[in-house]
Amino acid sequence: DPAAGREKAAMCQVCHGLDGIGKNPEVPHIAGESEIYLMAQLRAFRSGERQHQQMSIIAQSLSDEDIRDLADYYASIKFEVTVPDY
Amino acid sequence: DPAAGREKAAMCQVCHGLDGIGKNPEVPHIAGESEIYLMAQLRAFRSGERQHQQMSIIAQSLSDEDIRDLADYYASIKFEVTVPDY
Repeated sequence: DPAAGREKAAMCQVCHGLDGIGKNPEVPHIAGESEIYLMAQLRAFRSGERQHQQMSIIAQSLSDEDIRDLADYYASIKFEVTVPDY
Repeated sequence: DPAAGREKAAMCQVCHGLDGIGKNPEVPHIAGESEIYLMAQLRAFRSGERQHQQMSIIAQSLSDEDIRDLADYYASIKFEVTVPDY
């Protein structure tokens, strides 16, 4: 449920923004990422399979439903890319 | 050097594309990600700090220069988002 995910994204927005664009260079953009990838990363941070100072702590508080809603929300953000010519 | 990175991205494009858009739902979009984040992830896969079936293998072959060039290239892709209303 992306709308529920948007509510829950209040805890993510400091670093990821509600627009899914990283707010500092160490933070990835997650706008438009696939739900499968986002859920896999949140589960990995929660289980410890993937480690990160903040994410490992935040992920402990996430239920399976939270993970699904947050992934739904960020995956629902549309994006366009422009590949430069080299 | 993004142009050199584009050449080297030939080994990445099967999964990540030259446009930085994941070619299957398990692959993240890396278009427009910050160089700092991309380099940190490639180093983590190379050192084993982060694990992934393909990335852990591929990253072993990357030199520091490769990592910088690939990060330069993918970071140079323009990335614009449209946040849906909920």
